[in-house]
Amino acid sequence: MIRLLLTDLDGTITIDRGSYILDLNAIESLRRAEKSGIKVAIVSGNSYPVLRGLQNYLGFSGGIVAENGCLVFYQGVTIRTCEVVPRSLVSEFAKTFNLKESWQNEFRKSDFGYTPAIITDEMIEWANQRGLMISSSGYALHLSGKPGGKGVGVRKLLDIMNLNENQVAAVGDSKTDIDMFKYAAIKAAVSNADQDLIKSANVVLKLKSGNGITELVNMLLR
Amino acid sequence: MIRLLLTDLDGTITIDRGSYILDLNAIESLRRAEKSGIKVAIVSGNSYPVLRGLQNYLGFSGGIVAENGCLVFYQGVTIRTCEVVPRSLVSEFAKTFNLKESWQNEFRKSDFGYTPAIITDEMIEWANQRGLMISSSGYALHLSGKPGGKGVGVRKLLDIMNLNENQVAAVGDSKTDIDMFKYAAIKAAVSNADQDLIKSANVVLKLKSGNGITELVNMLLR
Repeated sequence: MIRLLLTDLDGTITIDRGSYILDLNAIESLRRAEKSGIKVAIVSGNSYPVLRGLQNYLGFSGGIVAENGCLVFYQGVTIRTCEVVPRSLVSEFAKTFNLKESWQNEFRKSDFGYTPAIITDEMIEWANQRGLMISSSGYALHLSGKPGGKGVGVRKLLDIMNLNENQVAAVGDSKTDIDMFKYAAIKAAVSNADQDLIKSANVVLKLKSGNGITELVNMLLR
Repeated sequence: MIRLLLTDLDGTITIDRGSYILDLNAIESLRRAEKSGIKVAIVSGNSYPVLRGLQNYLGFSGGIVAENGCLVFYQGVTIRTCEVVPRSLVSEFAKTFNLKESWQNEFRKSDFGYTPAIITDEMIEWANQRGLMISSSGYALHLSGKPGGKGVGVRKLLDIMNLNENQVAAVGDSKTDIDMFKYAAIKAAVSNADQDLIKSANVVLKLKSGNGITELVNMLLR
């Protein structure tokens, strides 16, 4: 029986990919899931204060996984799961590859966002040489401390909540969400997701982004 | 003609006072205002990253006034309007009066939150002696650098946006919102607002909190 729904934020509970506008019907659906005993957790590349604020005001009780898996929050406790990246490297990366830093970098410690969200071989080499990781959500390029990735944070969240994968559903839109599918029995991709995510999913939704969330919640509550 | 709607967050666009749950119908109404050419700005005692995240995901374009007036953000520019409070005083205040610090204090510089949200004469004296200010939103007690108060931030926002008070409506639920009424032609209080705010209002809404917001937007778009 599903007790926790892990959901990505950008492109998943928004009205479309590339949009930052929350789909209010999707939020309503997720609140319905909460009322039926399925906790909702946001798992995202966003910073901790942005996600904790959203979780609070949207009314979700399943905690958050912030900084692309590097920071976990549940019921008053925060746990860092990745190495902290030195500030000097954060700005050096931006300068070296002529990238714009996310306004949220000021509030991050292990995972940092940049635009444009395009990875090059030179970036991967630069990161490897420094023991760091690179990924892209389509919204931002991420530079992270090891081990990095949404899976690390999700595993920690399930430990704290004392849940196993058979009690977990996960939904997303991008490659970075593959990593959380490992810890979920229901692995759902919105219809407009990356092909790589669709290949890893066992539920491919008929509808895109926020509409797909309503479709998934209806399925879970059936 | 109203071009900007300043709205408080807690107790105003939530489902009730004392609740953190956003009223989704109120959000829908505010998006309707945006589509009709009235920009929406959140003016709140919350921290900058929480409000900027919300503004982004709710789809409001009127900027934000964070930290109870002490930080203004509009179209990529952030301006601090109050003195920065030394960290040592932030924690000394909590210890002296046995208060719990807001989790957001880590992300603030001029205005800090504490609970319980009850002001004593001793606190006012403590703050006066150190050139600081005290206020309460009902959700949190605030310790702020001077000049402090929502009015300072709102005045700066109107300067940046090149708007005068005849183009501005403001809505809130607590005493801390009186300060922004000075810069608005329409000064609206939700039905469940503090008596002091209701006395300062020229529009007292029939409905409480989020429902009052929908009532106000309908009035503005009539």
